[in-house]
Order: sequence, then C-alpha cells, then structure tokens
Amino acid sequence: MIVSMKRGASREEIDHVCRRIEQFGYRVHSINGAERVVIGAVGRGDLTQAIEQLESAAGVETVVPISQPFKLVSREIQPARSVIRVNGCRIGGGDFTVIAGPCSVESEEQILATAHAVQAAGGRILRGGAFKPRTSPYDFQGLEVEGLRLLRKAKECTGLAIITEVISDSDLEMVAEYADIIQVGARNMQNYALLKAAGRLDKPVMLKRGFASTMKELLLSAEYIASTGNQRVILCERGIRTFETYTRNTLDLAAVPALQELTHLPVLVDPSHGTGRRSLIPAMARAAVACGADGLMIEVHPCPENAVSDGPQSLDLEGFARMMRELEPYIALWKQQREAENASAADAACRQ
Amino acid sequence: MIVSMKRGASREEIDHVCRRIEQFGYRVHSINGAERVVIGAVGRGDLTQAIEQLESAAGVETVVPISQPFKLVSREIQPARSVIRVNGCRIGGGDFTVIAGPCSVESEEQILATAHAVQAAGGRILRGGAFKPRTSPYDFQGLEVEGLRLLRKAKECTGLAIITEVISDSDLEMVAEYADIIQVGARNMQNYALLKAAGRLDKPVMLKRGFASTMKELLLSAEYIASTGNQRVILCERGIRTFETYTRNTLDLAAVPALQELTHLPVLVDPSHGTGRRSLIPAMARAAVACGADGLMIEVHPCPENAVSDGPQSLDLEGFARMMRELEPYIALWKQQREAENASAADAACRQ
Amino acid sequence: MIVSMKRGASREEIDHVCRRIEQFGYRVHSINGAERVVIGAVGRGDLTQAIEQLESAAGVETVVPISQPFKLVSREIQPARSVIRVNGCRIGGGDFTVIAGPCSVESEEQILATAHAVQAAGGRILRGGAFKPRTSPYDFQGLEVEGLRLLRKAKECTGLAIITEVISDSDLEMVAEYADIIQVGARNMQNYALLKAAGRLDKPVMLKRGFASTMKELLLSAEYIASTGNQRVILCERGIRTFETYTRNTLDLAAVPALQELTHLPVLVDPSHGTGRRSLIPAMARAAVACGADGLMIEVHPCPENAVSDGPQSLDLEGFARMMRELEPYIALWKQQREAENASAADAACRQ
Amino acid sequence: MIVSMKRGASREEIDHVCRRIEQFGYRVHSINGAERVVIGAVGRGDLTQAIEQLESAAGVETVVPISQPFKLVSREIQPARSVIRVNGCRIGGGDFTVIAGPCSVESEEQILATAHAVQAAGGRILRGGAFKPRTSPYDFQGLEVEGLRLLRKAKECTGLAIITEVISDSDLEMVAEYADIIQVGARNMQNYALLKAAGRLDKPVMLKRGFASTMKELLLSAEYIASTGNQRVILCERGIRTFETYTRNTLDLAAVPALQELTHLPVLVDPSHGTGRRSLIPAMARAAVACGADGLMIEVHPCPENAVSDGPQSLDLEGFARMMRELEPYIALWKQQREAENASAADAACRQ
Repeated sequence: MIVSMKRGASREEIDHVCRRIEQFGYRVHSINGAERVVIGAVGRGDLTQAIEQLESAAGVETVVPISQPFKLVSREIQPARSVIRVNGCRIGGGDFTVIAGPCSVESEEQILATAHAVQAAGGRILRGGAFKPRTSPYDFQGLEVEGLRLLRKAKECTGLAIITEVISDSDLEMVAEYADIIQVGARNMQNYALLKAAGRLDKPVMLKRGFASTMKELLLSAEYIASTGNQRVILCERGIRTFETYTRNTLDLAAVPALQELTHLPVLVDPSHGTGRRSLIPAMARAAVACGADGLMIEVHPCPENAVSDGPQSLDLEGFARMMRELEPYIALWKQQREAENASAADAACRQ
Repeated sequence: MIVSMKRGASREEIDHVCRRIEQFGYRVHSINGAERVVIGAVGRGDLTQAIEQLESAAGVETVVPISQPFKLVSREIQPARSVIRVNGCRIGGGDFTVIAGPCSVESEEQILATAHAVQAAGGRILRGGAFKPRTSPYDFQGLEVEGLRLLRKAKECTGLAIITEVISDSDLEMVAEYADIIQVGARNMQNYALLKAAGRLDKPVMLKRGFASTMKELLLSAEYIASTGNQRVILCERGIRTFETYTRNTLDLAAVPALQELTHLPVLVDPSHGTGRRSLIPAMARAAVACGADGLMIEVHPCPENAVSDGPQSLDLEGFARMMRELEPYIALWKQQREAENASAADAACRQ
Repeated sequence: MIVSMKRGASREEIDHVCRRIEQFGYRVHSINGAERVVIGAVGRGDLTQAIEQLESAAGVETVVPISQPFKLVSREIQPARSVIRVNGCRIGGGDFTVIAGPCSVESEEQILATAHAVQAAGGRILRGGAFKPRTSPYDFQGLEVEGLRLLRKAKECTGLAIITEVISDSDLEMVAEYADIIQVGARNMQNYALLKAAGRLDKPVMLKRGFASTMKELLLSAEYIASTGNQRVILCERGIRTFETYTRNTLDLAAVPALQELTHLPVLVDPSHGTGRRSLIPAMARAAVACGADGLMIEVHPCPENAVSDGPQSLDLEGFARMMRELEPYIALWKQQREAENASAADAACRQ
Repeated sequence: MIVSMKRGASREEIDHVCRRIEQFGYRVHSINGAERVVIGAVGRGDLTQAIEQLESAAGVETVVPISQPFKLVSREIQPARSVIRVNGCRIGGGDFTVIAGPCSVESEEQILATAHAVQAAGGRILRGGAFKPRTSPYDFQGLEVEGLRLLRKAKECTGLAIITEVISDSDLEMVAEYADIIQVGARNMQNYALLKAAGRLDKPVMLKRGFASTMKELLLSAEYIASTGNQRVILCERGIRTFETYTRNTLDLAAVPALQELTHLPVLVDPSHGTGRRSLIPAMARAAVACGADGLMIEVHPCPENAVSDGPQSLDLEGFARMMRELEPYIALWKQQREAENASAADAACRQ
C-alpha cells in the first residue's frame, strides 16, 4: 500500500509511520516528493486493519491499497474460468444457462405450469421463492416449507434443477435439502452469518449483488463463502440503486465483463429485477448474452396480473417462450465466442 | 391508490381494472381526463400486492399509492413522540442521549478506559461491537461472547447502559442477555429474519438506516419490529452511499426532521460512520443537535491508531471530552426548543 | 394531476384547493377516501407551476402529475420513429450508425489517420473535439477553430460526416459552419441558453444525457431544442454517475429500450464514456446493438497512450477495426429485427 | 503520482513507463513489491494528461494522483480564510451572511415586499432570479432585463446588495451591471465558457455545487474562475442527487467542514434547494450555522402558494422572520467559535 503524508508532516510523524509499517510486516520504501513524503509499504496483502491504523496516525493524509482485497475468487490467482455443474449444465463453461420461474411459489398449479413452460422453452433451472424478503411486513412472506415441497414436486415432474432463496442462516440446512442451488439475495449480500453458513455447505450458491454494493464488495462477499470452504459460487448482477426512477434499478451490464476480468466465477444477469418492467426484459436479456454473461435469471408467471409479488416484472409463459426463441441466434454467437476464447487459451497454454 | 390508464386503453381494459379494484375491497372512482382515464381506488391501506397486480394489468400505465405503507410507527396515527427509557435516560423525551464507545471491543483495558471516559464526559450509554459485520472475511470479526462479557464488566464498573450489535437471529437471545439495547446495523436493515426476532424481544432495538435505504424503507423495517410486538424502536441516521468519495458516506441530516414528521420514534445520528473522518465529527455532532436529533452515537477509542477497526473515524478520549464540552450550549438550546414544543403541544391538547 | 390532501385537512383547505385547480383551467374531480380526500384535476397538461403552487397550498400532502411533461418528442404523440438523414445515413431508420474518432482533435496527422481508419472499418461519421469541456482549467482545452479546420479537411479526404461539440451558445454559429451534426455534451445537457440556440439551427443536434440526469430530464432538454424549432435531435446514453468506482460511469443500457418507448427520437450509445475502460468497450458495444440502440459513438485514437485526453477509454485503430468486425453478425440481427418491426407496423397501419 | 503495474508486467513495459514518466518531467522512484512493481513519479503537479497517458500504457493497472488538482483555491497554499466584502458584509470573515429572496423576480410589488422583509429580519443580500434555468421549456423562464431592473429598484429602496443568476456567458456583462454578486447555478457548474467569463469579471461570484458533482469537482470549477483572474469566489452547498426521493435533494452538510479543510473560500448553504420542503428549512438552517457555514441562502416569497417557481420550498415573510429569530443564539455561538479560531490562529502566527 502507499501512505501519502500531509504537506509539512514532521520528521517524527514520518519515522513513526515507517516503524508502524514495519510492525505490520511490510518493508518501507520512502519517496521524498516535491511537496510531500510518500511511503510505499511492500509486502503481501493490504490488511484493512493496517490501512485504517496508518490512516489514523498523525501526519498521514491518505493510504491507498495496491493489492485487491479478495484472493480465492480472484482471476489473478486462478486465470481459468470456474465451471459449476448443476443438473448437467456447465455454468461458467460452454453452456449458456437460463434460470426462470416465479418470484414466489404460490400453489402447485402455478409452479407446475411454470416449470413445464420453462423446460419446454429451453430453461434448465427453476427459480421460485419460498422464503420471501419483503420490504413491508404486511406483504406476502412466502409459503415457506410448503413452498419447498412444491418446488421438489416441480423438479420431479420436469427434471429441472431448483434454485431458491434463503434469508436466515437458521433455515439454511433445511432449504439445502430441497435446493440444487442456494440463492443469497441482494438484501443479504452482506449478511455475513448467512455467507459463512453458506460457505460450509456442499452446494452451489448464487450470490446476488446488493443494490448498493460495488463489484469489489460483491467479490469480498463471495470471498466469505469461498474462504469458509465452498468454492462453488455464482455471481448475479441484478441492478443497482441510482437516482433514475423510471426503471426499478439500473442494470449495470458493464459489471459482466468487468467482473469477468476480476474473477473466475460465473456471472449471471437478472433483467427482471434489473429493470422492474416487463417490456424491457427481452432487450436486456439479449444485451446480457451479447456482453458475455454466463446466463440469465428471469421471472416468469402463468398470469403476472395475479402474481402475489413482482407481477410488473414477470413475463407470462408465452412471453418467455418468445424471448427464448429470439435469444437463439445471440446464444449461437455467444457459443462461437466462448469456443474461440477457449481455443486461444489452450493455444497459449501449449506455447508455454 | 390512483391507477392511471394508458392513452387509448380500451373500454374492456378499463372495466377489467375496475373489477380488480373492487375485488381487492376498494371502491372505484373513475375520472375521464382529457388524455386518459384515471381511476381512484378508495379504501383502507394500499397493499403492495394490489399495486403490483394492477400495474401488471393490460392498459395500465402507473399505479400511485396514496397512503403511507407503515402504520404502527407513523406519526399520523400516534402524534406524540415515543419516549424509550434506558438506564434513567428518556430517549425521545427531554434528554439528549449520547451513546459512545469503540467500534469493536478489543480488551478489558480498552473497554474499561473508554467506558470511564465516556461516563466522565457525560455519555449515558456505552457502545462496543462483539460481533462485527466486516466487508472482508480477512478482517477482525469480533471477540464474540468474550466481548459481551467485557461489556458487562464495563457496565458494572461505570453504571453505563450497554448497546451492542447482533448480526444473526441465532445469536439474538444470547446477546440480549448482556445488552440494554440491541443494535441492528445498516447492513442488516433488511434482514427480515433478524427484524422479526428483534420484534419478539422485550428490549429496545436501535435500527440503523441501510446505506442505500430510503427513509420509507427504514420506517418499513421499523414496522417489522413493531408489528411483531416490540414498539421500543430507536432509529439512527448514519449516512447514505452517494457518488461523493471524500467522505465515507453522505450524512443525510435532513432525515432527522423529515423522519420526525413521519414517525413518533426517536432519531439518533451517527456522525462517525456518517463522515468516516475524525476531523468532521465535532461539526456534524453540533449540526445534529441543532437540527433536533434525539441523540448521538459516537465512536471513541483510547488510541485510534491502534484500533482494530474504524480508527480513522474514532475520536480519542480527550477529543471526545472536548466535543462534549463544545456541545453543551447547543444541547441547552435543544432543551429549550423541546420544552417549548411540549408546552405548545400541551396547550393544544388543553384547548381541545 | 392528482392532489392528495393531508389526513385531517379542513373543509376550507379542500375548497380552496378546488378553486385553485379551477383557476388553472382544470376540472375538479374530488374523491373522499377512507383516510383523506384526493382531488383529480382533469385537463390538458400538468404545468409545473400549477403542481408547485398546489403543493404549496395549506392542507396539501402531495401532487402527482399524470401526463408526461414533454410533448413534441413524445412517442405518444408521434408513434413512428424519427429518421434523421446525415450523409446518406438514416439515423433512427434502417441503418445502424457508427460514429467514431478521437476525444480531441490534436493534429492533422492524428485526425486524418483516424478518419481513414474509421471509414475503412465501416464508420460513417467522424467525431473529434475542438472545444473541450475539461474538469480542470489546467487540462488541454482544445485546438478550437484550428480543430474545426482539421475536421473539415478530414471530411474532404474521406467523405465522412463530422460531429463536434459546442460548449457555448456564442460559438454555435461558427461551429455549425463546419459540422454536420452539433454535439451538446453531458455537462451542458441543462445549459438552456445553448439548447435554445441549438433549436434555432438547421442542423441535427446530438444531445448527450447528463451524467446525473433522468431519462425524463433528457427528454425535456430535447423538448427545449424541438420546441424552439429544430426537430432533428439524436439522443445519446453515455453512462450515469453512481457509487460504483471501478467504471468511470455506469452505462444505463436499459435507457435504450426505455427511451424508445417514450420518444420517437433515435438513441445512440457511447460505451467509451459509459465505461471509461478500453477493455470493456467491445462487450458493451455488442450489448448496445443487441438491445436495439440506433448506433454507437466510439473514441478511437491512433495511439491512445499519446492522446491528450481520454486515452484510457480509446480504442486504437486496430482495436476499432476488430470491434467492427465482431459487431457484424450482431448488426445483421439488428437489421432483421428492425425490418420485422417495420413490417408489423406497416401491417398494423394497413388494417386500420 | 503512483503508477501501479499489473502483476506480471514485462521488463519492457516497466522500462517504457519509467521513460514516459521522465518525459513528463517527473523523477522515477521504483518499488519492487511482493506481487507487482509500483512506480512513484516525483515532481510538481499531477497533470490529468500524464495520468491518462500512463493509464493507457501497456502493463499499467492504475495511476493514483497524490497532489490535489486545484491550486489557487487550496487551503494548503493559502491557509487563511478568504474574506469577500460585499455591501459591508465580510463573507468568510466574522459576519454570518444571510442571503434571501424569491426564486424568481415576478413583479415590483413582490420583490419590494420581499426585500423589505428580508432587510427587517436581518438579511444583508437579496436574491432573485431574472434568467431562470428551468427543466421544462414550457415553464416560466424569467422576466430577464425587466427582472434586473426590479432588483436594482429593490436595492435602491432597501440598501440590500443584489445576487442574481446568469445562465449564459453572452448575458454576463449585462447582468454584472446590475448585480453585486453573480450566481453560477448548479446546472452550470461545469459550463466552462461561463466560468471563464466569470473569471474575467471584477465582481464576486457565487458558485453553486452541481447536484451530482463531488467537492473536488466544485473546487476545480472554482479554480477555473480563480485561474482566469477572479479570486472572489463564494461556494454554495445546495444538495446533491441521491436515491432518496422524500427530499428534493440530499443536503450534504458535511461538505461544509470538509470544504473548509480543503479551501480558503467561504462556503454557504442553501437549505431551500437542499431539501425542497418548507417544513425542513429552519432545522437545516440551524444545522448549517452549527457546523460552521459562512452563511445561508434562503428562498422567501410573500405568498409561496402564488410563486411562479419553487413555492414548496419557499418560506413566507413571517416564516423567514421567525427562522431568523430562532437562529440568533446559534449565530452568537458561531461568532464565539470564529473568534476563538482567529485568536488561536493569531497566537500560532505569533509563536512562529
């Protein structure tokens, strides 16, 4: 890290900072600038604690970290993309993965009708909320265990894998009995008790970006799961909160290639939450494929107008089927690109 | 709520929406505007579900709620301020409450030294984190139960009440054995499992505003606690996330009078997290008193440069004492204003 | 518009508001709700002044407009897309338009080399800044008139049309002598003197979205130009300011289909400013084509490392050519979609 | 500045960057870290161009500036506060300055009534818009020259100084004939043609912070004015754009002490635009005094309900007078603090 002293910092202040840097196990590398002294601290890792303590020292103006604070999920450390296999689908590998289903599981009829439609249109994984994190306590909170049972039934009938959200570490084990992938939602992205519990599971975890979280914070939350023991983490961009009110969130599609530069983990896109408007979903789904996302998560409901939650951002079954047909040529281009990339990576490996 | 139809919505679409409104238990009040039809739905409560389902109906452009979605915490329903008594301190009443202490409990020496200094300077409640929500898994995660024990010891030595954060509903009962006030932190403001568990406690709860949450979302989270059974909720403004990077957060002081218009719950201000810079804390503490906050929460550490967390935004013991002295005349003005307000409220009640 | 009275508003307050609504030329339509009175004001146009004055009246809680505040640029009023012809290119019509060139015009050699490369790769319009709006007064401010002359020379050599930015209404006429399209930059999106001056020109104007402006504010700024007399306005999404710092801005691609719902004007995308990182531009350019943008604006420089401005977000000539080749199959899909849409619009028109 | 190379950057890339740094006139100071090479560039000034060009070089990960990019307005360079004298009022010195008046000048009656009330309540400077920057072209655009004449008349009648906004460099000279202080509004904070023109005036300029501008960008815009030749710049915090919608903007009061650390220029606060709600203005005015602002700018109108603009955020004459009375004890504390600060500065100077 780089410690920039204030203009006019005293010799004692500078010496004190140098000693502190050495106590943290770094080597000191001091630069006498025209206007101020700048001290490089050379060593492995930029501990938050070291940064904060040096920032607190007298005479220090700023401390700038150089290393990325995440390790296990970093592409610097593991250049090859992680591939997570679920139900025969290679997420992050050569398959473009479509997850779809209702916001909430409401009834057997609703979830089975949706599951059959998702499968028929080419989806591979069924989503459906049994435990719902709702802004108001007066809104529907989910069918809970009964919802999990209905998801299992839908899986048996269609062969789709199941993803569902968990909102407390106390429920995690129970939910994991039913789900093929555990979803940690945007509002729980920094629920560290839940992240650590998810890290002890032997199940893939889909971690959604918090609506006001930076990409680096998302990666640090993924690092929580990975460092507790579970490397099978899937990221999901679902829109961030901005001043724009026409859309429910601002879908940050540039996060897809940006995250893929920073991490080896797969990155999905959820244009339903990302826009909050049914009419915008197909265009943003195409854009997500085109910019290289590893898959999509889409809200689908047999009758959005009767949905207990998220109706305005749900496609109906026919709308979903139409979107999937429109995506086909884009997915074909996506596969070409992925193959070209793999070929060139193999080529590079050969030459070494 | 008000349902605005699209220009050119068909008769069938309009009739269908009217029927749906009636099914939700509202009366229909239709207005034929120059450009479009607008339908008023008259009745109690604007259910999220009704709003979303109507937004999903064909021909509908927007649905605008009229009522506030929170009830128990609303000042429309309870005009008098809630007063929450802790350790002889009337939070929300005629006492200006100062909570202070370190970000993390680190050692007996550290917490006792801080507690004595907080008490000497006029603080009434000691803060100290035992379970820490940290962005990186590699940062200090708190002393956990040992931290709680040290807080109890500090309480025994000084008579200060104790507030400490809980980060999982599984830990809540245990933490409640030690704490006089339970803190739900910004990152858990929408951890609904935790909110519901806090609602079942017989202890005051301090709920910090999420760093990207609106005031209304904060009030809905307070409503979760209140509607589960615990009315003793204290709100805390601690800065929101914006594009500005010079400060760690943007302290939204206007939220103080704004929340006090909307709710009867007390509203504290945390200028330590709100600015992230020690040098700005005294000025923002004065401003918080001046705009009518019910109290302050301040990070204090015997030696910020050695703090395991949040050193750059912690005052040292002398700095805290100086700030408290500087606040005195502002708190005196605050008391005058509170008394004038109470007198005029009593007056108004008499006349009725 | 809908005026929602406070709970407990008096009869006098309600009557007063009704009279004011009538004075503004609206009809009053009053609804007695369970908790409060809501008054519909029926008539054409929701004047800002009427909204503000009613909000200021005693007893009023909120005033919600129903109509869109923009008229001439609205798709409600003109459903067919506007097509703006420049140099044989139908912007907004069946041609996907690529504008490219350096941030700043630096020298004859630089601009000619770029222009030839842009043309060879399939670009139709050359960008290049002669008057530069720079955050710091110590940064390069542009070659000014000399820059305009070099752009004219590049046009003569290559046949490309020219777009360049104007930053003051005093310069507008002079710049318009050289440019085929006038650019109003993000920082001047609400420079109303400039917008009105641009509205008096007989030249297409490209209006970039302000980095903290909503889509509706962008459309109101376009309405300024249109209502002064110039209907040939092209919009450009170039990223908005958010809390995310990894990218220079957050490219709001959902604004493309959203704006196309709201307006008949063409919508381009600038992924160079939108991301600020060269490595992300090709992916976001593909995404922009896929979500239906009418074109792209790309920063290209013969040697980004020597660029006087915006080097980190400029492609070099070979990188631009490669990106254009990669875009080809996406543009082919784009054309199919545009043709299908036109066919179905024609079909709909026939049936009427 | 500090140039951080990518992990695995080649020897050639590193050497190339070192050469470039030297070409820019800096000395090279290279640090071989555990994971990567970091290069310090030692010298005066961190030119934007140098930063961008080095960021564009192969093998470079990031470039971090060390120096502040603003010079003339920096408190590092001039530690003593600037005092700007207007009409006997020492702005930035020992006087707390209150500017008040209507959003728009509407009529002689309106502006004279307001001016007399402002003067009676203790205001020293009258605000009033003659050229209005309005979001919609259909809103009132100001009385223009007639408005300026009415302001002059109000000045003659009351002795108040006049501040009014200018929205185009073409109008600047004419407006300067009437105004004692020229206002550059938030939407024009980065209208560089206007800033440079204001820099050539012999009149104080009040520069409002753009609603999505950082403090450093505000200071760079002030630097434009100062570096063109006009050092008499007054800054004004007026709220920034965030996700919160209950208030019109989020008033960033921490910007007051933060800017006062960074610059010697006076900093005013505008709680009218900062909140957009009349009911919140008095509390935020008190807070602004308490945190050390140099003054306030307040919107006042004889009858806010008839105001052609900004009625919801205007105080009426009686409300303004009441607010001024309530501020008195806070301003008295402010003066004590300012005097104590001056005494200690004088003391420090003596000892040197």
